[in-house]
Amino acid sequence: MRTTALISLNSPYSFWQFSNRHAEQLRSAFPDIRFRITTERDVPVEIRAADVYFGWAFDTEWLTAPTRLRWTSTPSAGVDHWPVAALHAADIMLTRGYGYHGRPMTEHAIGLLLGFSRGLFESSRLQARSVWWKDDLADSFFDLYGQTLTIVGCGSVGIHLAEVAQALGMHVIGVRRSPPRSEPGGIEWVPAHRVHEALARSRAIVNLLPATDETRGFFDETTFKACGPGAVFINLGRASTVDHDALLDALDRDRLAGAALDVQPHKPPELDDPLRHHPRIVLTPKSAVFSHAYMDQAVAFFRDNLRLFLAGQPLNGAVTPTHGGPHDSH
Amino acid sequence: MRTTALISLNSPYSFWQFSNRHAEQLRSAFPDIRFRITTERDVPVEIRAADVYFGWAFDTEWLTAPTRLRWTSTPSAGVDHWPVAALHAADIMLTRGYGYHGRPMTEHAIGLLLGFSRGLFESSRLQARSVWWKDDLADSFFDLYGQTLTIVGCGSVGIHLAEVAQALGMHVIGVRRSPPRSEPGGIEWVPAHRVHEALARSRAIVNLLPATDETRGFFDETTFKACGPGAVFINLGRASTVDHDALLDALDRDRLAGAALDVQPHKPPELDDPLRHHPRIVLTPKSAVFSHAYMDQAVAFFRDNLRLFLAGQPLNGAVTPTHGGPHDSH
Repeated sequence: MRTTALISLNSPYSFWQFSNRHAEQLRSAFPDIRFRITTERDVPVEIRAADVYFGWAFDTEWLTAPTRLRWTSTPSAGVDHWPVAALHAADIMLTRGYGYHGRPMTEHAIGLLLGFSRGLFESSRLQARSVWWKDDLADSFFDLYGQTLTIVGCGSVGIHLAEVAQALGMHVIGVRRSPPRSEPGGIEWVPAHRVHEALARSRAIVNLLPATDETRGFFDETTFKACGPGAVFINLGRASTVDHDALLDALDRDRLAGAALDVQPHKPPELDDPLRHHPRIVLTPKSAVFSHAYMDQAVAFFRDNLRLFLAGQPLNGAVTPTHGGPHDSH
Repeated sequence: MRTTALISLNSPYSFWQFSNRHAEQLRSAFPDIRFRITTERDVPVEIRAADVYFGWAFDTEWLTAPTRLRWTSTPSAGVDHWPVAALHAADIMLTRGYGYHGRPMTEHAIGLLLGFSRGLFESSRLQARSVWWKDDLADSFFDLYGQTLTIVGCGSVGIHLAEVAQALGMHVIGVRRSPPRSEPGGIEWVPAHRVHEALARSRAIVNLLPATDETRGFFDETTFKACGPGAVFINLGRASTVDHDALLDALDRDRLAGAALDVQPHKPPELDDPLRHHPRIVLTPKSAVFSHAYMDQAVAFFRDNLRLFLAGQPLNGAVTPTHGGPHDSH
């Protein structure tokens, strides 16, 4: 029986949409494989005849019927919405993507950081009504050059971000559960249990932690007390890793000069959510991985993995219940 | 008679203020020189006994009395407010600073660019009132990676900016009246008369032109017509180099996706100035060279030049009526 790969990757946004062009690329690269391009509605039926699944989401219910599924794959970096344990129990592999989230997330993080450090958000707010706001900015701006950036959950995205921060003259600390032995790109590695020391030295903090039981509320009152004064906190990871009351308190006590949140506890936040209205918080609508190159790169990653799969070799981005997640986010 | 250096560098901002610490540094480096630290009010009298002057501004009136002045110096990169011709006629040298404006201006330019390309200004505006603004951003964001940045008036500041833009994966075109023969840092050099070709290829345009007769209105209707569609225009140079009616028109015709102006034709702009209220313009209050390292670096630059002066050697940053300004801005 021919190997069948089922693909369900639809999006309201063209850059996250699996297109006919992508299907043609795969079919021409793997003429022996049967590719079924489908929609979320038809997955429950189509999945029964699939060996490989490539999609945004996976429903445990799909495992109740007999299946020949051997490998499920997602373009996302985070798999907190995937049934990792159930797939593992059913002996079905799961891979996630990495290597292509770094560019847009780096642009997003650096833009947010400079938006605060150069007073650009403040300027944009004051320009319509303040006669002249040079004094306001002179009191609050800071040079990124020479300052320390701590990246918490520093995996491949963080290493990409570190390169650009270093080009701006920043010192970079990478925090991981288990720091790598080698030191790519001159990053100073610090293990997670010493994160407070790193935060105390930092003017900029980027949180890239994935959502796990272990990372829930990682940035709490104690952690924010270790920050600053005057640090900027940027969360491009998951909302569950932050205690947002403690964040608001840290802003009001001036431990933090500003905060930018690409993820929020409620999506969308209530219109009266204080996170929307704090003058030193900038919210973005989970747009940090917006990239016009996204699906092209995700398909290229899948294509490389499919070759490995057909050759019976280990896959890139393999996720198991005990590996590949916490503190080592891609 | 001992050589006397008169210094008048006061500012409401500490980072632009010549401090006692700077005076001590100079006195200890040059024990044979008499340093007079003064205020603008006392310069007209003090200048009569000075061989060297280091200040923010110079008034031609100071030349009416007999003078032993041989060298005037400013920390600024631009000297459009200095009496270049009169000093030259009086055989008094003028130098300006360079090499330390690049870092803050690079941070400012990159922050403004990313503020538009990642929809950060739009997010900051919409977060308080829009239920969810993901669609708005998905329509308008763009990746800097892979895009072309054209720097008009690409001197040492531009070369510094180019390095960071390249770290973000951008291709950089440097426009100068006379491009250098060597190619520092992989910049594609284009002479000023071919600027339209460069602009047509660019998604980002940073204007660093100084104010001269030659650069007045350089960015006019014709130049903006060569841009885009969808380019972001950032002016960190001088307001006189831009026709602001043509700029507003280019925004309304969507040739430009956004514009950021660190310099404006009126300072401060009138409260009803359309530049303040256009939804795709961000104004900053001439804060691009805000840097806490500014005066330290300006004094170090002056100190090096003072050594050259005492040794009778050519000075760094020499300005004459025909050299050192247009299109080759530091």
